[in-house]
Amino acid sequence: MAADAHPPIEELAARIRAFVDRELIPLEAEFLKNAAALEPVLEAKREEVRKLGLWALALPREAGGQGLPLAQFARVSEELGRTPTGHYVFGVQAPDIGNAELLHLAGTPEQKEQYLKPLVAGRVRSCFAMTEPHTAGANPVLLSTRAVREGDEYVIDGHKWFCSSADGATFAIIMAVTDPDAPPYQRASMFLADTSNPGWKFVRNIPVMGEAHGGYFSHAEIRLEKLRVPVSARLGPEGAGFLLAQERLGPGRIHHCMRWLGICARAQEELCKRAVRREIAPGKRLADTQLVQSWIAENAADIACSRALVMQVAEHAEKHGFKAAREEVGIIKFQVAGALQRVLDRTLQAHGALGMTDDAFVAFAFRHERAARIYDGPDEVHKLSVAKQILKRYR
Amino acid sequence: MAADAHPPIEELAARIRAFVDRELIPLEAEFLKNAAALEPVLEAKREEVRKLGLWALALPREAGGQGLPLAQFARVSEELGRTPTGHYVFGVQAPDIGNAELLHLAGTPEQKEQYLKPLVAGRVRSCFAMTEPHTAGANPVLLSTRAVREGDEYVIDGHKWFCSSADGATFAIIMAVTDPDAPPYQRASMFLADTSNPGWKFVRNIPVMGEAHGGYFSHAEIRLEKLRVPVSARLGPEGAGFLLAQERLGPGRIHHCMRWLGICARAQEELCKRAVRREIAPGKRLADTQLVQSWIAENAADIACSRALVMQVAEHAEKHGFKAAREEVGIIKFQVAGALQRVLDRTLQAHGALGMTDDAFVAFAFRHERAARIYDGPDEVHKLSVAKQILKRYR
Amino acid sequence: MAADAHPPIEELAARIRAFVDRELIPLEAEFLKNAAALEPVLEAKREEVRKLGLWALALPREAGGQGLPLAQFARVSEELGRTPTGHYVFGVQAPDIGNAELLHLAGTPEQKEQYLKPLVAGRVRSCFAMTEPHTAGANPVLLSTRAVREGDEYVIDGHKWFCSSADGATFAIIMAVTDPDAPPYQRASMFLADTSNPGWKFVRNIPVMGEAHGGYFSHAEIRLEKLRVPVSARLGPEGAGFLLAQERLGPGRIHHCMRWLGICARAQEELCKRAVRREIAPGKRLADTQLVQSWIAENAADIACSRALVMQVAEHAEKHGFKAAREEVGIIKFQVAGALQRVLDRTLQAHGALGMTDDAFVAFAFRHERAARIYDGPDEVHKLSVAKQILKRYR
Amino acid sequence: MAADAHPPIEELAARIRAFVDRELIPLEAEFLKNAAALEPVLEAKREEVRKLGLWALALPREAGGQGLPLAQFARVSEELGRTPTGHYVFGVQAPDIGNAELLHLAGTPEQKEQYLKPLVAGRVRSCFAMTEPHTAGANPVLLSTRAVREGDEYVIDGHKWFCSSADGATFAIIMAVTDPDAPPYQRASMFLADTSNPGWKFVRNIPVMGEAHGGYFSHAEIRLEKLRVPVSARLGPEGAGFLLAQERLGPGRIHHCMRWLGICARAQEELCKRAVRREIAPGKRLADTQLVQSWIAENAADIACSRALVMQVAEHAEKHGFKAAREEVGIIKFQVAGALQRVLDRTLQAHGALGMTDDAFVAFAFRHERAARIYDGPDEVHKLSVAKQILKRYR
Repeated sequence: MAADAHPPIEELAARIRAFVDRELIPLEAEFLKNAAALEPVLEAKREEVRKLGLWALALPREAGGQGLPLAQFARVSEELGRTPTGHYVFGVQAPDIGNAELLHLAGTPEQKEQYLKPLVAGRVRSCFAMTEPHTAGANPVLLSTRAVREGDEYVIDGHKWFCSSADGATFAIIMAVTDPDAPPYQRASMFLADTSNPGWKFVRNIPVMGEAHGGYFSHAEIRLEKLRVPVSARLGPEGAGFLLAQERLGPGRIHHCMRWLGICARAQEELCKRAVRREIAPGKRLADTQLVQSWIAENAADIACSRALVMQVAEHAEKHGFKAAREEVGIIKFQVAGALQRVLDRTLQAHGALGMTDDAFVAFAFRHERAARIYDGPDEVHKLSVAKQILKRYR
Repeated sequence: MAADAHPPIEELAARIRAFVDRELIPLEAEFLKNAAALEPVLEAKREEVRKLGLWALALPREAGGQGLPLAQFARVSEELGRTPTGHYVFGVQAPDIGNAELLHLAGTPEQKEQYLKPLVAGRVRSCFAMTEPHTAGANPVLLSTRAVREGDEYVIDGHKWFCSSADGATFAIIMAVTDPDAPPYQRASMFLADTSNPGWKFVRNIPVMGEAHGGYFSHAEIRLEKLRVPVSARLGPEGAGFLLAQERLGPGRIHHCMRWLGICARAQEELCKRAVRREIAPGKRLADTQLVQSWIAENAADIACSRALVMQVAEHAEKHGFKAAREEVGIIKFQVAGALQRVLDRTLQAHGALGMTDDAFVAFAFRHERAARIYDGPDEVHKLSVAKQILKRYR
Repeated sequence: MAADAHPPIEELAARIRAFVDRELIPLEAEFLKNAAALEPVLEAKREEVRKLGLWALALPREAGGQGLPLAQFARVSEELGRTPTGHYVFGVQAPDIGNAELLHLAGTPEQKEQYLKPLVAGRVRSCFAMTEPHTAGANPVLLSTRAVREGDEYVIDGHKWFCSSADGATFAIIMAVTDPDAPPYQRASMFLADTSNPGWKFVRNIPVMGEAHGGYFSHAEIRLEKLRVPVSARLGPEGAGFLLAQERLGPGRIHHCMRWLGICARAQEELCKRAVRREIAPGKRLADTQLVQSWIAENAADIACSRALVMQVAEHAEKHGFKAAREEVGIIKFQVAGALQRVLDRTLQAHGALGMTDDAFVAFAFRHERAARIYDGPDEVHKLSVAKQILKRYR
Repeated sequence: MAADAHPPIEELAARIRAFVDRELIPLEAEFLKNAAALEPVLEAKREEVRKLGLWALALPREAGGQGLPLAQFARVSEELGRTPTGHYVFGVQAPDIGNAELLHLAGTPEQKEQYLKPLVAGRVRSCFAMTEPHTAGANPVLLSTRAVREGDEYVIDGHKWFCSSADGATFAIIMAVTDPDAPPYQRASMFLADTSNPGWKFVRNIPVMGEAHGGYFSHAEIRLEKLRVPVSARLGPEGAGFLLAQERLGPGRIHHCMRWLGICARAQEELCKRAVRREIAPGKRLADTQLVQSWIAENAADIACSRALVMQVAEHAEKHGFKAAREEVGIIKFQVAGALQRVLDRTLQAHGALGMTDDAFVAFAFRHERAARIYDGPDEVHKLSVAKQILKRYR
């Protein structure tokens, strides 16, 4: 794709959809059996994507990406979200996309050279070590990982989990408290660390909903034991950790919503296909029953209004910045996660016993996307935060 | 307002909002006691609106309105919907706005002169006699009112109800079967009839949710007993009744959704105001509690995504016609009606006992807007219809 | 009915059901038009009930009632709840039944003679003045009505509302703070006062969901202005107000749940009757559609599990006292109120436009029983209280 | 346990609860990693249960069980349901318990000797081959597996799945059409077949929600290819297949409900434990927040009313037979499955990220018990069936 001109977004989306349908959806059965074992195959698909000029569409140009505006990437992301490997194969997968944006935003020229370039190029993978098993992520006061300055180094100790994709990652961005006496939101800083660092102790890939395959599609538990990094490995100023995390999470939440819309769309397709095929009495299909019809319509409503709102918020955020869109981003985070869960639940129910099996796309989505209402802030945290912003206008 | 140039929509909305806040919301207490008795006061307000150049904004210019595009009227309508008399005072109230559109679309020059002109000017009111107590409105085959041609006249017999605003209306548009043997959707025609016609038997204002005040804010039961109209009183071709009804209902449903968004917005305002005022323990307000906060956020999400979708559909319908937007109009009809009910329910609950009384806006809205999920097609009819349109793409 | 032997409960329930069907349900149309005007007719029905030996079944024998055990009254109450006048006509209506229990429990012989006897006999009516418009009822600290001792009298000042049935009541039980410095739950006391007392200022019958008919079926706003009562009019010890209120509310909440089950049962009957009658296409009834069938089943489930639990709790409370059943009573209060709202909502929807009119039982129930989730403690207060009791077992 | 006298049920339940807490819950982590590998350990636990006299409590005495009445077993089953291995270790696990009841009911003395005795003793396992991948189980007309009589044998061909516990089972009960021209409910018969029969082709253990461990805790896909059984292997009369299936499913559904109540109870325990432990701000626990408190209360209500109804239905079914209780069994099937899903969803959400991992009980239950709304008839089939039974009383 030429760097200067994006083709009309619907044309781009159609190309991507065709690729997803032809190249990626057929891999799902294999993916479900062993996601890690599929990585070489996915690597080949990534190469094709690069050749097609569709690589890293949403990443900043200066970082080697293609700079697709957020509202357009929303459209693309919905296509990629239709299959679990979509974003990965097109080089726009979490957590790398978020890490790339962080590096682009706050990295030194040396950090960009060392970490950002190979990351955007897809030559390495990364992870983000923020969540801790024993502290509530929504409360900065509780963050317990410490980074203590010793001369030209920081020594980091802590316990992290849900380090997505840490297994196989080359480097990590670590969130740690540098000044426990500072005001809560100025206590932490971010650090770049190679996973080959001897202080980076990989504990396990956490079994999530029964699965612990490893590789990109995994979530690790990590212990940081006297992990030493040079001062030059600090990402951004000391004390800027939460500020940077917010910068990362704002677009990150929109990215999640856009991906969820793709999962919803795929579920609805699978439901409709199943409904027109499945015979429930001679000459009568699931699609002929009122109950299944009403689920299809409810899915359509959940999807349509979530999509309309996400597009609006993406445009607003792009125009006025994520800070201005904070309230709306909070709303879509829990609204779309809720819609996703309802859509998947209806779709699973319409599949009957098949819906419980890995022969069906919906079973995978149902169990793993339950996390949508939890990660990057559980529904409740977003609801309370949105309400407080609204109530300010009445006090 | 100059006929040629609409001021930027947000400026227009702000002017209307100020009028609603200053002139109409203070009338609500009186309105709830006796809506009919308030009509002279409302007439004076209408006169002010005319002077401000804000009359009949959404009606076609050729008919004497101001031709505001649908997506802009959506914004205006949300402001008007904040109080029960808003649309009436601004001359854009159902059923008159729908009848005006019908007359504009299908009326002869004489019909327009006689009926449309005074209607748009607000000098007379009208009603629409379609719904029947003993037949299911969603099924054209069941329509039982008959119009039999006798020479230059039609003789109409039937039983109608939910003739909104029939009490005090000058004329009615009546839906009646002219050819029971035609294909279902070609059986009926529409007729204009004066309510002074001796065949127009006013039975009663139906008590709806405990109220039967009469006047504009009422719903009548009517018997048509050998009601005779000249052939020239037929609106549109013979057999075009359902076609015209669809033309009327498409924009009508969007109009309802836009008005409901106004009710939602007002409810949310009332909830927030109540929450910051109501003390539940010394120094602690309702607004400080998680449960009320979560309701405020859920209201915000219901409103935000409904509004985003309605706007999108209004733009789509305006650009490509209501026929192209049929599936989406079906979706917003049940989606926004559902959001409305949820918003009102949360708001009422947050009001406690006060929410059950006519001292609170929400009590009126809660009981009357329960009808939103029923009129112009119950949720279920829209859901099944939307699903069938979606499923066509899979068969 | 002989004082010593209750007939088997199902036989008793069947007799009552027959009376309700024959004598009371036919009065509903009249009742909805003007409940106050119907009182003379209801008085005659009460006389018939007395003759049938079915009067005041649930009241204590010593107080002139028939002492039906709570779990048996639950069954009876479900029959009475099928129509709005049921409990009233059988002499077991709130607030009188609760006031009678209070007088029975805490009244002096003189108080019983003067107030309890005529109340149980149905010769007078009473009311209970506890709720205040400007304080949250769930928090005893906020109660603002004051009773100040002056010699042999108390002087009471305050502002009350939702004094149900105050219009036409002969006397009231008033809750007022006697010692603002006592521990919160020992601050208030109860007082008996005649409504002819010059300090009892009747402000208005509050319009509730559009209705303010007056008479038994009303809710008043009252001002207490230097209302003087002799010390002998205090009900129970000074400071025992909240304790007594709890004694009154425990069984009161079970009584509400039992009545709500009757409303649910009636709604389900109306839904089924409507479903088998209403034609939606030639030869096809509402009852033949999956969506209406699923509502009927969901109603049945809501009713069946609520009923099973209410019965169990009634038995438990009767055996071990209301204090032991406190957690369970909290659960049924919000569980059954929620089931009631769902049942009424489904039933209304199945009625279509008819469901919005006073031609249908459901419209009355829908608007008035919305209060079920609010009075005697809103859902939220009960939920938090239940949770705290459960959590105690884990701390 | 003496065969003649059951200890009071609460004492029995307490003994079992203690065993579950001490012996089985600690095995859960191992179980989640590899259920099949745990079987030898479980075998030892079963031996302890036998020694304690708690084996096969719910099975008929004549079959070697202990004949615990259904309503008492409900109480026991709730304790066993608290951990995934409970029923298995106590010898009352599906599908064996249902197969045992079938053999007890319809088996010949030879069949009982050969199959029932070792089954009840726990020396062998069995499976039930009814569900087919390509036909809707709710419709008998669609059953496609055929059993053709050839001399003294039946030759069975078909395709089955969700043969729970087929992996490792010694024999199967197979449902097959013997007379395709009979009235629908008389077309099928049941057959006993050893899994060593060459016509029994084990295809795979179906991966269910990401897991395919094999052994008792598995669901197999099976092909029946010219599987030959002697006529003496038919279970019950020819054509009695559906009748027997109903006999099996009636109590089976109550058994499921009772087990689900145990899962609910356990989830609620885990939620409460987590809530009192998890710090969300200094000195503030999850248990101190309104939202988590409201979930705990909602869980309590869901559990309490489901339990009350299940107990009532169990008593009714035992007294009057499953046929008389058919409507109620249909209600509890979807009511309790729904309550289960809601309870698990709230519990998972309260766990945050931990709830997605196999470190938490709830993750396993959330993904696997989604099937509760599907197996033994999906919610929708039960709802429609319940409604039709209710509506019969109005036609």
